[in-house]
Amino acid sequence: MTRREYDEWLNEAASLARALRYPISGDMVNDSAGIVFGDDQYAAFENGLWSREAHELMVIFESLNEAAVDGLPASASHGSEYSGLCDKLMIVHPGKFCPPHFHQRKTESYEVVMGEMEVFYAPTPVQVGDEEVLSFNPMPAGSPWPDGVDLPAGREQTYARLTSHVRLKSGDPKFVMHRKHLHAFRCPADSPTPLVVREVSTYSHEPTEHAADTPTPLPAWAGLHDNAFVAPAANTGRLTTNIR
Amino acid sequence: MTRREYDEWLNEAASLARALRYPISGDMVNDSAGIVFGDDQYAAFENGLWSREAHELMVIFESLNEAAVDGLPASASHGSEYSGLCDKLMIVHPGKFCPPHFHQRKTESYEVVMGEMEVFYAPTPVQVGDEEVLSFNPMPAGSPWPDGVDLPAGREQTYARLTSHVRLKSGDPKFVMHRKHLHAFRCPADSPTPLVVREVSTYSHEPTEHAADTPTPLPAWAGLHDNAFVAPAANTGRLTTNIR
Amino acid sequence: MTRREYDEWLNEAASLARALRYPISGDMVNDSAGIVFGDDQYAAFENGLWSREAHELMVIFESLNEAAVDGLPASASHGSEYSGLCDKLMIVHPGKFCPPHFHQRKTESYEVVMGEMEVFYAPTPVQVGDEEVLSFNPMPAGSPWPDGVDLPAGREQTYARLTSHVRLKSGDPKFVMHRKHLHAFRCPADSPTPLVVREVSTYSHEPTEHAADTPTPLPAWAGLHDNAFVAPAANTGRLTTNIR
Amino acid sequence: MTRREYDEWLNEAASLARALRYPISGDMVNDSAGIVFGDDQYAAFENGLWSREAHELMVIFESLNEAAVDGLPASASHGSEYSGLCDKLMIVHPGKFCPPHFHQRKTESYEVVMGEMEVFYAPTPVQVGDEEVLSFNPMPAGSPWPDGVDLPAGREQTYARLTSHVRLKSGDPKFVMHRKHLHAFRCPADSPTPLVVREVSTYSHEPTEHAADTPTPLPAWAGLHDNAFVAPAANTGRLTTNIR
Ligand SMILES: [Mn+2]
Ligand SMILES: [Mn+2]
Ligand SMILES: [Mn+2]
Ligand SMILES: [Mn+2]
Repeated sequence: MTRREYDEWLNEAASLARALRYPISGDMVNDSAGIVFGDDQYAAFENGLWSREAHELMVIFESLNEAAVDGLPASASHGSEYSGLCDKLMIVHPGKFCPPHFHQRKTESYEVVMGEMEVFYAPTPVQVGDEEVLSFNPMPAGSPWPDGVDLPAGREQTYARLTSHVRLKSGDPKFVMHRKHLHAFRCPADSPTPLVVREVSTYSHEPTEHAADTPTPLPAWAGLHDNAFVAPAANTGRLTTNIR
Repeated sequence: MTRREYDEWLNEAASLARALRYPISGDMVNDSAGIVFGDDQYAAFENGLWSREAHELMVIFESLNEAAVDGLPASASHGSEYSGLCDKLMIVHPGKFCPPHFHQRKTESYEVVMGEMEVFYAPTPVQVGDEEVLSFNPMPAGSPWPDGVDLPAGREQTYARLTSHVRLKSGDPKFVMHRKHLHAFRCPADSPTPLVVREVSTYSHEPTEHAADTPTPLPAWAGLHDNAFVAPAANTGRLTTNIR
Repeated sequence: MTRREYDEWLNEAASLARALRYPISGDMVNDSAGIVFGDDQYAAFENGLWSREAHELMVIFESLNEAAVDGLPASASHGSEYSGLCDKLMIVHPGKFCPPHFHQRKTESYEVVMGEMEVFYAPTPVQVGDEEVLSFNPMPAGSPWPDGVDLPAGREQTYARLTSHVRLKSGDPKFVMHRKHLHAFRCPADSPTPLVVREVSTYSHEPTEHAADTPTPLPAWAGLHDNAFVAPAANTGRLTTNIR
Repeated sequence: MTRREYDEWLNEAASLARALRYPISGDMVNDSAGIVFGDDQYAAFENGLWSREAHELMVIFESLNEAAVDGLPASASHGSEYSGLCDKLMIVHPGKFCPPHFHQRKTESYEVVMGEMEVFYAPTPVQVGDEEVLSFNPMPAGSPWPDGVDLPAGREQTYARLTSHVRLKSGDPKFVMHRKHLHAFRCPADSPTPLVVREVSTYSHEPTEHAADTPTPLPAWAGLHDNAFVAPAANTGRLTTNIR
């Protein structure tokens, strides 16, 4: 991906975000905001963002990532990394995907701002070690996948455990994705516009290049990386963007 | 406040929210969404919502109040009531206030969607019992109050400790209000439109009439009420709305 | 209608218009912008704008009414009053109507901004005197009326000749209403929001109180009133609003 | 300009238009909507739409171009080509221009939807032949140009007669550009977003490739082309777009 391709992608996305009244400040449009999930996914730029081909790449504009540690009783600091507040706008072009992953700590919610969002997820949580977890209001079963979902070449198997499907649109109630559930989503390939989604979640532990100097509120938070992508290449691709 | 006055207030507010693309579903427009902070504040309806007089009343449309307990390690359940996710749209008419209060548990953030928001707050936290609390990124000092802020009659003293002022507008970075900080806000009296603010926060423990049947994720959450208003009348008024 | 009722109606409507990005300047919110079509229609305020009852009243915010006479060849001044440019935002509450009327000179187009618009019209033009008129692209036939359209009491007969129906929504192509066609429209009674429509048309010859001092570009334009309402009471009500 | 470059330009622009609620239907996104004003201006694609360099190119989405001939008295058909209704959304990237031109017949008005619009114009009309024209409400004088307006290389002289400048932003009153006045405009080079402007005008006589099959309401309208660009290359470039 060339610098020109990257800048065009980001500038158009930021303009769309502003048109939709998302609060964009200059430093949110940076070299970690455009995400290509692994070296093979840069092939998306051979035919461009509007080819409607299946690839894994997206833009994230993050307006808030607040640890919410201030004012917490010291006695409650254990587990604070499961808390906090994050607000992001995610922009995905037609046919493109946010690839399969889960977060051990982060609970998410989705609000579609423009377009329609196809969410693919596992209805039961990933077991992390032998950890016992709470259950209060489990994920809904969702529906089976519809026909005709074109998956990214070579990554089809990474979607296998995400057997539930839901399609969300603007005005729908917020959809909650509990932590430890595998999830992915895409913009339908025939969409006239990119998908635009606001994600309100607990804190995002993502050591991107842009976030490299973010201080750590508590020693227990140091070095946390809370994204576990199914495809190893997506895992490494998440944190750095290769701009020529 | 008559039923007609209430319904006009709520229906106009919900229409404004929809115009601004906030996800409103029918059950969000209910008899707990319009809030009058105490019996004396119903006087706002003598001259109406557009009198520009100082009173304490507002609309809150809540699109999300998620405990985020699912998937939490059982070992981290202590303190979980300081976590969770809440998303609200707040609509305040010119001259009107959200009155002084603090939350022991809830950390908030503000995003102005339309109009301008005058925030009044205490730059240092309230001490709750002899609890030791964490400090990582304290509140900014803000500025002294500007001249000409007309306070609600008889409630002037409840604003005395909120010595910091900041004025926010659409497109500004999110403004974080840490838990345990006294805060209030208003829509400027000369505004051509109501103030519209999106608040993303941790879970709201508010036992309103509408929320009466909401189940509790953990025994420790039962009966929590996390709003502490300075004016006793605001405290009682928060939870029920008297519609004739 | 009291001053308070009028001001609340107009201020809420102007706020909605601003939320939808319509260019509102202060002088557009005036005592001719809220229109009640005849003395009997003030009954709408007995139960208020959200009663969903059928009455004839609406708000019009006019951002442009340009004669477009400048630069016209003097030889083409005959007929110039059929030309010009007008841009309005029209806001109609659920169940309310813009009543049946036609314009001898004004051709209109509708763009729904929020809600849905039920248009009722006569598919053939009114014959004005023995005037011969041009025909190029006649009105479409439309559909018969759907069931369940509750008409304003006592005015049912004024709708009799408007036999065609079309329902328009946001994103639809512009719908053109040719001059000399009887037309009316309403916001569906069960709508969660007011109907908001942008009308782009040729010049509006409307001698409202607010427009009383507007200068006339050519002597032939003096005293023109281009609105012909079927109900005589609507005709007189159009130009003045009785605010107590 | 490659097909990919063109399609990316148009698809991003149409998405922005939809985000801003402009009524886009599929056939409005066509190969005449993206306009490059002359062969030399394709150089804009060497460094791309976000280079902030001065070039003459823009997108126009036309939602309405209505002759408004129906219902016109036959006796008033002379001069009807100065009338009619056109509604367009124009999208201009930072630093880019709509080049100097005038319309003998078309009167325009501008409403900024996003960004800021720098208008450059001649305050007095072009004399067309020895035609006598009407004057009612002449153009305002405007201001002198600000410093730092980078003009398209080789086209500087075509701006010489456009000595007046005005800067418009969202919410401003509609700005009328009378027919026969030279005008151009740009998006400021340092803008974070493209400029988006709604133009409401009288009929656009523009024989673009896309409009080639549009029928003519009256014989006098046949073959009319109402755009007169100062730069001959802009004149020819207006009507066809060269997509490789
Ligand atoms: Mn995720
Ligand atoms: Mn609060
Ligand atoms: Mn009409
Ligand atoms: Mn022009």
